[in-house]
Amino acid sequence: MFLATKRVVQCNALCVRQLTRRYLSAEAAGNEAPRRGKIVFSGIQPTGVPHLGNYLGALSNWVKLQNEASAEDQLIFSIVGWHAITLPQKAKELSASRWDMLATLLAIGIDPKRSIVFHQDDNRCHTELAWIFNCITPVGKLRRMTTWKARLADSRNANSASEIDESMLNAGLLTYPVLQAADILAYRATHVPVGEDQVQHLELSRELAHLFNRTFVPGKKRFFPPPIADITPSKRVLSLRDPTSKMSKSSPDIQSRILLTDSPSQITSKLRSAVTDSTIGITYDPINRPGIANLLTILGACLGKTPSELAEEYANKSNAEFKSLVTDAVQDLFRGPRTEFERLRNERAYLEEVAKDGAERARVHSEETLRQVRQFVGLY
Amino acid sequence: MFLATKRVVQCNALCVRQLTRRYLSAEAAGNEAPRRGKIVFSGIQPTGVPHLGNYLGALSNWVKLQNEASAEDQLIFSIVGWHAITLPQKAKELSASRWDMLATLLAIGIDPKRSIVFHQDDNRCHTELAWIFNCITPVGKLRRMTTWKARLADSRNANSASEIDESMLNAGLLTYPVLQAADILAYRATHVPVGEDQVQHLELSRELAHLFNRTFVPGKKRFFPPPIADITPSKRVLSLRDPTSKMSKSSPDIQSRILLTDSPSQITSKLRSAVTDSTIGITYDPINRPGIANLLTILGACLGKTPSELAEEYANKSNAEFKSLVTDAVQDLFRGPRTEFERLRNERAYLEEVAKDGAERARVHSEETLRQVRQFVGLY
Repeated sequence: MFLATKRVVQCNALCVRQLTRRYLSAEAAGNEAPRRGKIVFSGIQPTGVPHLGNYLGALSNWVKLQNEASAEDQLIFSIVGWHAITLPQKAKELSASRWDMLATLLAIGIDPKRSIVFHQDDNRCHTELAWIFNCITPVGKLRRMTTWKARLADSRNANSASEIDESMLNAGLLTYPVLQAADILAYRATHVPVGEDQVQHLELSRELAHLFNRTFVPGKKRFFPPPIADITPSKRVLSLRDPTSKMSKSSPDIQSRILLTDSPSQITSKLRSAVTDSTIGITYDPINRPGIANLLTILGACLGKTPSELAEEYANKSNAEFKSLVTDAVQDLFRGPRTEFERLRNERAYLEEVAKDGAERARVHSEETLRQVRQFVGLY
Repeated sequence: MFLATKRVVQCNALCVRQLTRRYLSAEAAGNEAPRRGKIVFSGIQPTGVPHLGNYLGALSNWVKLQNEASAEDQLIFSIVGWHAITLPQKAKELSASRWDMLATLLAIGIDPKRSIVFHQDDNRCHTELAWIFNCITPVGKLRRMTTWKARLADSRNANSASEIDESMLNAGLLTYPVLQAADILAYRATHVPVGEDQVQHLELSRELAHLFNRTFVPGKKRFFPPPIADITPSKRVLSLRDPTSKMSKSSPDIQSRILLTDSPSQITSKLRSAVTDSTIGITYDPINRPGIANLLTILGACLGKTPSELAEEYANKSNAEFKSLVTDAVQDLFRGPRTEFERLRNERAYLEEVAKDGAERARVHSEETLRQVRQFVGLY
């Protein structure tokens, strides 16, 4: 998964096409004049109905980026199904998750008129470019990347990456960062909002951009701009039942997470039973009081304050009173998006239309990139 | 490179489409009735103007297969540009080679009305399916395959694969056999003519067909037929200057190979200067008389006889007389194809039309395969 993005294109598809051509032809001519805006790309895996951790960690950031973007910036958000299948998936669940993720993005405020929103697997430019990048990516470099180990460990509920060895590794997981580079560079994106755990992958995208330019582009011109990482300060939301581990979709205990679809009473129940401690009063101490610290993180994210500020503010509250405040804040946070998500979920025809339009607009960018890439490598 | 194919579809594109639908819908319904014909797929790298070794080793076999195929069989021939870029290429040369290879195929008798002839890189179904197969292919299996070492050794003029180590390996070369499996299975091909050195790769295609069926297809039905290797008896043509190594495009000595474009006088000169030995008379002894044995192989392939038969027939000829017979045979062999090749080479618009039509017909098959594959894995 990667995270979010910058600034807004407030125009229709035609206008986006014109903008794209302008960017591309300026670059193609070797014109190194500063771009008029950023091209921001970010992808998210189709994990289905998001939980509070997903929302506060990544999704809300996309909306913030969109709403703070300036008119020249382009925002491209992709639901990356081809990445999802690097680990085993159940077909029906994956399909449902693809559409739920799209409904989620729209429900939380991603505007498909302002941003390009599409299913990665609707645009085969990504797999073609990934193949071409494969041909200049040393296998040794991919094997040394640590993220595939973490991903495998996660999927197998292993305690640490040290339990994982290469016998479990498939070629999809190994070349995951190459496809990710293709995702980004197919749009010649300039900025990629990423979580801290994704910085290594983005480094490969930057290296591939440089290497491709150096190897194939006449005059070694900067055809692919090495994308810049916008590191998103991660709000790490922890399990409500075990605040030493992340809030996770794969935990067997459904009380450990709050889903976007949870009713107000479910939210109340889950937060009421959240594991805290018996110390009296509220303090922010992530080491000794992880449960309370987690609730402070959640409340802070909802209210736009820091956990420490809130700890001071509510120093004299009881745990029960404090949990009740968190409950109100989370209910408020999810109220609008939940209603909108439930509505959109049933509007499959509309979602398909959004996906189709998004894929078409995405292809306007990436087809032009691929046309030039094929010229550079000789496939014409 | 893979080699050739079986039987002929003597009809226009529309008819092929109808045939395809019939095959596909019968299979999709889980109907295991025997197919009415074979689907034969073969690919060849765009290496440009072929030499005598390419022609006798693979290309002539494609024509033979086409001409001996029965009406129900489908033949699909692909020029595999995405495979070519797993080793460094010069863009202009690669582009010229792509079109020269198409002109070659037509010049030697591949009929684009009977067979589907297309550029692999015009059909992105291949890279999508390769990605999906990557996700079920263990990296360990790919690393253990020996062909990438041979290919690297070849490209670097190393004396043997032992000089090659994994630090030189890129992800394209590592996953080359996965793309090859996708090439074949995108058409659900039943038969693949291969050289002996390709059997290991085809084994992976068979395993991936089984694994995909077992993992994703409801009822484990045989969606992908494990393709059958039609092993082509390889006529190994050796260098005219050093008959201990293969005739090769990469040898610096142009006298070592006869090209399809060589004039009759060039053929005469190259064969006259072919390295033989000072033994009197003609015998077939590949160990002690590799030069003469190579000329017997060439003459045998031209005339459809075995080297031993010919050695008996010409036992009392001098080397010079024998070389003159070989010269006549090779001139005869190349006369028609050379003229046709030179004509087609200049008909770029026609070649583009053939490539476009071929790619469209190829997509009729592969899009239907991919549609179903995406259903099976959950990308819908």
